[in-house]
Amino acid sequence: MIRERMSSEHAPRIPEVTAHLIEAGGKRLRPMLTLASARLMGYGGPYHVHLAAAVEFIHTATLLHDDVVDGSEKRRGRPTANLLWDNKSSVLVGDYLFARSFQLMTDAGNMQVQRILSNAAATIAEGEVLQLTAAQNLATDEGTYLKVVRGKTAALFAAACEVGGVIAGAGADAEQALRDYGDAMGIAFQIADDLLDFWGGDGIGKNKGDDFRDRKLTLPLIKAIALADAGEREFWVRTIEKGKQVPEDLGEALRLMDKHDTLEATRAAALEWSARAKAALETLPDDPIRQMLADIADYVVARVA
Amino acid sequence: MIRERMSSEHAPRIPEVTAHLIEAGGKRLRPMLTLASARLMGYGGPYHVHLAAAVEFIHTATLLHDDVVDGSEKRRGRPTANLLWDNKSSVLVGDYLFARSFQLMTDAGNMQVQRILSNAAATIAEGEVLQLTAAQNLATDEGTYLKVVRGKTAALFAAACEVGGVIAGAGADAEQALRDYGDAMGIAFQIADDLLDFWGGDGIGKNKGDDFRDRKLTLPLIKAIALADAGEREFWVRTIEKGKQVPEDLGEALRLMDKHDTLEATRAAALEWSARAKAALETLPDDPIRQMLADIADYVVARVA
Repeated sequence: MIRERMSSEHAPRIPEVTAHLIEAGGKRLRPMLTLASARLMGYGGPYHVHLAAAVEFIHTATLLHDDVVDGSEKRRGRPTANLLWDNKSSVLVGDYLFARSFQLMTDAGNMQVQRILSNAAATIAEGEVLQLTAAQNLATDEGTYLKVVRGKTAALFAAACEVGGVIAGAGADAEQALRDYGDAMGIAFQIADDLLDFWGGDGIGKNKGDDFRDRKLTLPLIKAIALADAGEREFWVRTIEKGKQVPEDLGEALRLMDKHDTLEATRAAALEWSARAKAALETLPDDPIRQMLADIADYVVARVA
Repeated sequence: MIRERMSSEHAPRIPEVTAHLIEAGGKRLRPMLTLASARLMGYGGPYHVHLAAAVEFIHTATLLHDDVVDGSEKRRGRPTANLLWDNKSSVLVGDYLFARSFQLMTDAGNMQVQRILSNAAATIAEGEVLQLTAAQNLATDEGTYLKVVRGKTAALFAAACEVGGVIAGAGADAEQALRDYGDAMGIAFQIADDLLDFWGGDGIGKNKGDDFRDRKLTLPLIKAIALADAGEREFWVRTIEKGKQVPEDLGEALRLMDKHDTLEATRAAALEWSARAKAALETLPDDPIRQMLADIADYVVARVA
């Protein structure tokens, strides 16, 4: 379904750019959540596939636009589309995929599904704008961070799970449980991802310290800034607020996070959200698919566990 | 409705950027077409307003993204959002408005409307990508130009009219007539706009010759290139295909278009599409609103008539 709908009759550049990103892999976590939620709740029709593809297109569109916004050069271990083609193509192909995702939803013919996914799309964009304006602002606290994460990541995970339940006619309680699972799992996923930006650097297609250089206030930094003494604060004002960085500053930032143990505290937060995700599943049918969803909640934090 | 739905609980930059563009004016032609089509076909409910706002949001999102793609500095007589804020804000606020437009459609609760507008959104993006890849390509002919124009402009005019009819339950024939009217009127509008890029320069918030400098092959250029002798062709290869331009080249381009009378031929094409738009109205109810729609078809080409 993804391959079929990423085509374009008139503009061959659209499937080229889309395929570059889609065929690079990625976990397909979001569409799988939709398929799994629908199956868990007993859905027997064909439209969970349309909704799963719609969810993946929203995600793909967001990645294309994010890489333009962040000026990123690498994604899924490959050069980004904005680097290989140009920003224009990434913006417009992203728009095309957004539109295609709404066409796919329309195929499913369920108004509640449309409402959930259009709300998610709005929340994603809102979270990204909030992140943009919170960047470089040292007053950003954990509450704002959570809002950004709910917007840019958890909203789509929550919606991906919920629409699977809705298309299956699972009922309000089960739909809410699926939504809560997706929300908590998405938060766990993003916290782990933000942590890995300071740990990683190999194999995940990102460069270590990108968020620090982009002056993005993620949880490990927010926690370190909250615990900073006067001298440390000066360092954060210079590097984050004023953006006057030299290459050695990443090492000093890592030292300060280590001093205040904020990488460890961030890791604990990720694990706690993962546990909440699993708890949300308890009222759902006891089924191998439910166990698989619980495993996914472990999987998304396994890189930091 | 537009003001209400452009708000954002968490990200104040969203209504700031949106208001900058929305409050600058613009003709509100597209939403007015939706309201008029619904009323013409006897609609008495409230949802034509939601659909009109949805149409305007799609248009506004497209403008924000276009100005990023084109690196434009002026729109509706004001500095563009990408200049006043940054490309990031324009991309993300555009995404937000796309999502908001789909929320508005969902409010109307009509699947056919959703299909028409999501198809239009896909066609717009496709037209923009086609324009991007056709730019700088001297082989671009009038057929490709028409595809681009149908995509980037006429698709939303056609959908704006059609959904007004659909929400009113006008029936297939009237809905098709409204769609045909919007399509032809949109083509007339865009041809006139492309012509004005070489005529204008005052009062419309654009700089004369922008399309030539951007190496966009619009109708007056395509017609001149088709009629070029060998020496003229060298000029077009250098300025459009290779993009090696000096400021005096715009004058030479205008001289060549004048020599082959292509501005006049383009003007005639705009008037012909305007006449087709009026002809499409003939089967619709004889009503002051129908006359108003006919007047709009005159209005969009009045600047070049």
